[in-house]
Order: sequence, then C-alpha cells, then structure tokens
Amino acid sequence: MRKEKLLELKQYINELKTVKIEQILGESQFIKVNRFNCLLNNQKTIFREEIIKNNLPGSAVIILPITEENNTILVVEPRVFTEKTVGIGLPAGYIEKGEQPIVAAKRELEEETGYVSNNLIELTKFYQDEGCSKAYNISFMALNAKKLKKQHLDESEFIRYFECTFDEALELVDLGYIEGVNSILTLEKAKKYVKGR
Amino acid sequence: MRKEKLLELKQYINELKTVKIEQILGESQFIKVNRFNCLLNNQKTIFREEIIKNNLPGSAVIILPITEENNTILVVEPRVFTEKTVGIGLPAGYIEKGEQPIVAAKRELEEETGYVSNNLIELTKFYQDEGCSKAYNISFMALNAKKLKKQHLDESEFIRYFECTFDEALELVDLGYIEGVNSILTLEKAKKYVKGR
Repeated sequence: MRKEKLLELKQYINELKTVKIEQILGESQFIKVNRFNCLLNNQKTIFREEIIKNNLPGSAVIILPITEENNTILVVEPRVFTEKTVGIGLPAGYIEKGEQPIVAAKRELEEETGYVSNNLIELTKFYQDEGCSKAYNISFMALNAKKLKKQHLDESEFIRYFECTFDEALELVDLGYIEGVNSILTLEKAKKYVKGR
Repeated sequence: MRKEKLLELKQYINELKTVKIEQILGESQFIKVNRFNCLLNNQKTIFREEIIKNNLPGSAVIILPITEENNTILVVEPRVFTEKTVGIGLPAGYIEKGEQPIVAAKRELEEETGYVSNNLIELTKFYQDEGCSKAYNISFMALNAKKLKKQHLDESEFIRYFECTFDEALELVDLGYIEGVNSILTLEKAKKYVKGR
C-alpha cells in the first residue's frame, strides 16, 4: 500500500468520524419491522420478524469500478455504529422501487463518485440477512469507469471517494480498513476477473 | 454433486418450506430499531437508525465444520422471507450476551448438528450491515468435528443437517442452493485451508 494513499484515507476517516451520538425518541422512520406467523410444510408454526427499509426489502447493489488505468474507486463514509464510526468500501446503495439492479448500480456509482460506466457485469448475488429480511444484494463490476460527472449526494450523505489499485483494495481488507461484508465478498469474487494482477 | 445427496437436500427443503404466511399486528419483539442524531467531525449532523436484535447488536458466529473424513456439515432451515422459503448454509447463530465468539461457535455447532469440535480456527470477521447495525460476525473452521451429541433446538427451530464434501458445498453455492452471504463468504475464505481439494 502506497504511504500517500493511506494518508489520504486517514484524512477522510478523520473528517467523517462521529464525535457525538445522541439517542432520540419517537417511532422509527427508515427501518420498520413486520411480524408474521408462518405455517411450515411439517405442520409446525413459527413466528418471524422481517426488517423493512424505506417500505422495501432493502436490497442493495454493490459496484466495483474498474477505471481505464485498471484502478478501482472506494468510498469513505460515516458508519456511525461501527467501532471506527467510518467505513471504507465499494460504492453501494439501495435499489429503488421498481428499479432494475443494473440501473441502480449505474446510478449509485454516478451519485457517490461521479464515475460513469456503460459496461457493468454481474459478479454475484446473495441474501444479506436471510433469517429476517428479503434483502437480496447484487454486485457488479463496472468496467471502463470514467470520471465524467460531479458527485451528487443527498443532504444527509457525506461521502469521499478514493482511487487505488485493485490489489491495494484487497490489502485494505487484510489491514482491517474494509470491514463490510458486501464489499469484502464482491472484491473476493472479482479476483479472478481483474486483469493485470 | 452426488445425485443421492441432492435428493436428500430436496426432501429437507420440501419438509421445511413455508406453506402459509400471515402478518400479525403488535409491537415487534425480537427486532427493535433505535434512532440517533450523530454529530460528525465535519460539524454536520446526520440521522441514523440502528437495528437491535434481542437487545443486542445481533452479532453472529458462522461455523464451517470439517469432519475427520474431511467432509462438512450443512444445515437446512426455514428462511421464510426468501424466495424458496428454506435456506441451506453453514451452522450459525447469534452470540449471547457476554459470550465469547468461540464459545458461541462451539455451542451453535452442537445445538444445530450435535457435532463437537475442540479445534476452532478463526477464518474471517466482518460487519453484516454496517450502515444500520453494530452486528460484527465471526466465521470459524471447526476441525475434527465429531457427531457426539444429539441436536438440541429451541421450540421454534426446525433444522436438518446434511453431510457432504467441501467441494459439494462450494457447488451448492454455484447451483444457487446456498444463498446467504455469511455462508458464502465463509466458504470462500476457507478454500485455501481445506485439505485434499
């Protein structure tokens, strides 16, 4: 890992860390929980609860951008519940209502980084928390990604993006900087496809 | 994949599938949502919601058992929110309050399968849903696993276990039978350690 890249990363982490967290009362807005009795084919009934995010299952897309220089783009953002309070990983986001996963992937990549790709290849898909959610995530590799636009984030999104080599991204997993399962599995599954390694 | 093993698996899937699901009213019990205002180091405030499971973060252990015959043990259980309504994967479960992850791993392996191992090796760890949860999962490989006990399940748990080779487990990922990210990443990370492949 190049020293100057690690320094750049540490600056973003410092900028986005949580310095104060305060619990507030009231009903949850984004995350809801539904309750079900389920009759199984063995005639037993079990009770299960389902996590709902923004009135949807919460399925997400994860994007591994590969630039023309064969680099990748990572994002740094607040992850207020983690130990470091800041997470590093691949661009990602929730699929909107009625949206095709590949459309969501292009949209999230553009919003979070300003990079554009018209060559997205599906890498893998999986349930994120199959015991209590329908969330089914899909990972894409976005080839020939080019910085053509500006970031455009929601009000409550603060995201820094960061260019590095694919091998440096793998190193960031080993060093404990990339800790989210979506990014880790996507990088793992991409190993056999990324050229020049 | 051996035909008779696939048949065995399909029988368990049929037995444990959901035939009727009915939403019920009332406050959620197992899953709760907490709300927070978070002040970042950049002086911005963001609002985030946190998923709580059974009054804990919901951190889980995942166990890849390796028997003396170099086979592995999978579990089949209801996953009522998934398309198939039944999931196949590695033994796994939530870490209890104050419990060491390795103790939780031994306990869950014994409870779900009756297999016992005293040689657990940590494979990997990761946040399961870092945007809205503190859940930090740990995967173990359980060597020399022996069938020494009976399954002992909670009232609302219906779990079948299933012996196959490690390569057959990988095949079940490729065939779309194993779809949960915890099992998939654990199997992926174990590839370099499992002997005789």
